[in-house]
Amino acid sequence: MYSSLNTNGNAAAFETGPVSGRFAAVYSEVQNSRIDHALPLPSVLRNPFKVVEGPPSSAAGNPDEIAKLFPNLFGQPSAMLVPNEADSLRSDLKLKIGVVLSGGQAPGGHNVISGIFDYLQDRAKGSILYGFRGGPAGIMKCKYIELNADYIYPYRNQGGFDMICSGRDKIETPEQFKQAEETAVKLDLDGLVVIGGDDSNTNACLLAENFRGKNLKTRVIGCPKTIDGDLKCKEVPTSFGFDTACKIYAEMIGNVMIDARSTGKYYHFVRLMGRAASHITLECALQTHPNITIIGEEVAAKKQTLKNVTDYMVDVICKRAELGYNYGVILIPEGLIDFIPEVQQLIAELNEILAHDVVDEDGIWKKKLTNQSLKLFEFLPQAIQEQLMLERDPHGNVQVAKIETEKMLIQMVETELEKRKQEGSYEGHFKGQSHFFGYEGRCGLPTNFDASYCYALGYGAAALLHSGKTGLISSVGNLGAPVEEWTVGGTALTSLMDVERRHGKFKPVIKKAMVELEGAPFKKFASMREDWALKNCYISPGPIQFVGPSSNAVSHTLLLELGAEA
Amino acid sequence: MYSSLNTNGNAAAFETGPVSGRFAAVYSEVQNSRIDHALPLPSVLRNPFKVVEGPPSSAAGNPDEIAKLFPNLFGQPSAMLVPNEADSLRSDLKLKIGVVLSGGQAPGGHNVISGIFDYLQDRAKGSILYGFRGGPAGIMKCKYIELNADYIYPYRNQGGFDMICSGRDKIETPEQFKQAEETAVKLDLDGLVVIGGDDSNTNACLLAENFRGKNLKTRVIGCPKTIDGDLKCKEVPTSFGFDTACKIYAEMIGNVMIDARSTGKYYHFVRLMGRAASHITLECALQTHPNITIIGEEVAAKKQTLKNVTDYMVDVICKRAELGYNYGVILIPEGLIDFIPEVQQLIAELNEILAHDVVDEDGIWKKKLTNQSLKLFEFLPQAIQEQLMLERDPHGNVQVAKIETEKMLIQMVETELEKRKQEGSYEGHFKGQSHFFGYEGRCGLPTNFDASYCYALGYGAAALLHSGKTGLISSVGNLGAPVEEWTVGGTALTSLMDVERRHGKFKPVIKKAMVELEGAPFKKFASMREDWALKNCYISPGPIQFVGPSSNAVSHTLLLELGAEA
Repeated sequence: MYSSLNTNGNAAAFETGPVSGRFAAVYSEVQNSRIDHALPLPSVLRNPFKVVEGPPSSAAGNPDEIAKLFPNLFGQPSAMLVPNEADSLRSDLKLKIGVVLSGGQAPGGHNVISGIFDYLQDRAKGSILYGFRGGPAGIMKCKYIELNADYIYPYRNQGGFDMICSGRDKIETPEQFKQAEETAVKLDLDGLVVIGGDDSNTNACLLAENFRGKNLKTRVIGCPKTIDGDLKCKEVPTSFGFDTACKIYAEMIGNVMIDARSTGKYYHFVRLMGRAASHITLECALQTHPNITIIGEEVAAKKQTLKNVTDYMVDVICKRAELGYNYGVILIPEGLIDFIPEVQQLIAELNEILAHDVVDEDGIWKKKLTNQSLKLFEFLPQAIQEQLMLERDPHGNVQVAKIETEKMLIQMVETELEKRKQEGSYEGHFKGQSHFFGYEGRCGLPTNFDASYCYALGYGAAALLHSGKTGLISSVGNLGAPVEEWTVGGTALTSLMDVERRHGKFKPVIKKAMVELEGAPFKKFASMREDWALKNCYISPGPIQFVGPSSNAVSHTLLLELGAEA
Repeated sequence: MYSSLNTNGNAAAFETGPVSGRFAAVYSEVQNSRIDHALPLPSVLRNPFKVVEGPPSSAAGNPDEIAKLFPNLFGQPSAMLVPNEADSLRSDLKLKIGVVLSGGQAPGGHNVISGIFDYLQDRAKGSILYGFRGGPAGIMKCKYIELNADYIYPYRNQGGFDMICSGRDKIETPEQFKQAEETAVKLDLDGLVVIGGDDSNTNACLLAENFRGKNLKTRVIGCPKTIDGDLKCKEVPTSFGFDTACKIYAEMIGNVMIDARSTGKYYHFVRLMGRAASHITLECALQTHPNITIIGEEVAAKKQTLKNVTDYMVDVICKRAELGYNYGVILIPEGLIDFIPEVQQLIAELNEILAHDVVDEDGIWKKKLTNQSLKLFEFLPQAIQEQLMLERDPHGNVQVAKIETEKMLIQMVETELEKRKQEGSYEGHFKGQSHFFGYEGRCGLPTNFDASYCYALGYGAAALLHSGKTGLISSVGNLGAPVEEWTVGGTALTSLMDVERRHGKFKPVIKKAMVELEGAPFKKFASMREDWALKNCYISPGPIQFVGPSSNAVSHTLLLELGAEA
């Protein structure tokens, strides 16, 4: 049983600050039991393998521009690890590898690092693994720690990113690339693994291109991380952390559903993390069957207004009241209002007006709003109006992220129901309860799926570096099958890219994978939501189990996208 | 595997409305696996037993008044089930028993009902169990359902109260007692089990007294239910639901802690359900080791002001900043401001002023406040001031329950830190994130502890009724030992009672069990909190497990109160 780390050795190398390490940590029984949880590896990684290449790749869009931006990398093939009679890579190579965590936390990050470390121990004994501290800034400032077995041990299968911490800096300017080069040279790095989301993997590819352009030996491999689930493609079926985060949220939603049904008097409005894409909300809906679920991508595709969304909710609430149900559960994606064009328009106008005009108490300033925006503004609850007027970021802009959409919708629904009551078309009673599930899900203990998936991603990333690959994203596939049948390889990061025009220049971007309205997960949801709205089909997934029932379950989104019935 | 209930039989007896039953339910894998979880019974309940009595009882306070209020019940001894060579109760008695759920949800309620049902099946075959629907109102209106094996089956070990639903009505007036009598007579009830908190058990005792006074045969037994943990005494070591709810909250708190440590830039202010007593907050603190924990009972005992509480938080935050930690986790009990005398005073004054005076924009009305209240009012953040002025309940009173204490404290801490920054005594950076964990914990799948505890409570309650007892609360003890060694009996409800003077009359009350500042749980917390404040001793309990590590753990509060080391 692991109960505390000694305070000498690497722990002492830490400065005080955000990285406190776990050297003083006492673990719960479940945390303890997870440390020694044996991780299965795909069979290809357990036996001798060789790396084979696919055909040349292109880009997700604008291949000509991508080719210009990545002259050294564009077109490179994907790599796949396949069984071989003998190991094809030299086990006497002593590699120096760096690893960095970039962006927000996602359950499983520590296991990617363990996977890299164990690969090096298993297949390139004597190699060194450096952990860059505090995200990409750690690369630029050459802040790192040498990771060894004792240091890594207590983080195995644990949530959080606190082994080396993360950060949101980007390596962007020529000076910053220069700093990264200096670190690569100083540490004599053979390779670097960048664990991050779409932006961080774009950055990883730029680093790979830059290092190759400068004839540095340092190769770069990315790993797909984000609870939001919006970094994925054919070869990368899911990003890690999505599985755990959704299961944590679904546990809470399921509990709230049973509460709603038992109490019979509350509508629970649950806002779920995931600003850009609504994958989390969709997955949680598939797991729990709420009465109402709003998917941002559908709202945008149908060009719905806030009034449309409110009316949809109110219609369901009225129908339920007729059936005798004055309760329910409603899921809302964090980024909902970003999907509503009229809201974006209003905010743009407000930013303009607030920057240049006096806001008088009599509201004459409102005449500067377009008709549509004025109508929307007046439709908003007073508290939201005030929030839009008063709370500005340091640039004077309205802080959209601070709007508590779930509370706003409760007020709008209340107002509309009141109206219908007076018209005689609603006779129920309505009480809203608001919830936001976000931070709870980013650092939970990774599920068995995420724990194994991350371990394979890390183990595979090290194999790709060992074989001299660069500019690839670690790709573990066939995820619907048992772990031993999973495939392992790497996909050209340039093949995921398109360009965006920013400040008159083309910038490479990995486009976020949004919820596809023609995709299997959304279609399954759409085919069932009417039933869920009026019948009470709630499912309570319960707490994540590490052994026994459902402990090896995979997300519905993943299964449906793989063509299975979830 | 259970996947759906058929829609005929008892389900069809339901009207549409809050009680939808689970006849259309589809279960998650974990829910399914729990249904058939075999529940251990204390050995005394598995073998022949007899009921023995203790010495005559008294009251928690004012025994003379309690004796007057309960002339038929006062002084009755506790009962204890002890092993016997043969069963002492007639197994050919066919009993008619009613059961009712009263008040807010708590995990395990369904198992109390299963326990009663199984006792009757095992030891009084041919008995009938009626479930009163929607709480005590179901008794008064004689709304019930006859519970059978098929009906109960899908609710075994499941969270929620939706088998028969609950309600907050009380049986108080002579007319209401009359209605209860009529139901008892109509259904020919031998007994009634009331599952509820302090108020509901007081009510149960009044019913028992009333039935006996009227020479009705109907006996009444109470069961201790409340996630708040504030219904307990020597014989009733804990109320059911507390264990599960605290573990659900602690899972979330642990996740947020790892997030805080990984990100290094947020202070998470977590408000926890529990308005009257701070047991939940204390238990969660013992499970997770937050940097700051506010216990309402201590605030009250030390007559602390809101400024004191804020200063305590700010002092810790400043010291942590000096150590390089600009993050942390803070637990706050839901009822905090109810414990602060000056806040109560301010609210009383505001209610008076708002009822009688015009609130002018220039603030002349404020002169009506006492000095102390004015000072406090102006110390409050503007949003809270507005909330106090604007949001009133139907009686015109300030709605204290609606104040989001965690957000208020974030604002007050921000203001104070800004001041210290200007004075040069703070150089850190502070960002608060607010959370409220409440509804998520009331209807979770009961832990193994709560599942077994509730089953024993119900099984024991039925045994007490079978042996002709009334006016007792089902009491299961020795809870630190394995289930088979648990003791089973009943405690005179009158012995838990004191009186309160209301409207010139003595009213019997079971006093809420508050956090004892001299009790073992608080003392343990107090002895460690300084360490927790500055070092990062976070523990992440992880999700509740039903098999394997920690699946049979008991709450720290219970263990410490039993004299064990938690």
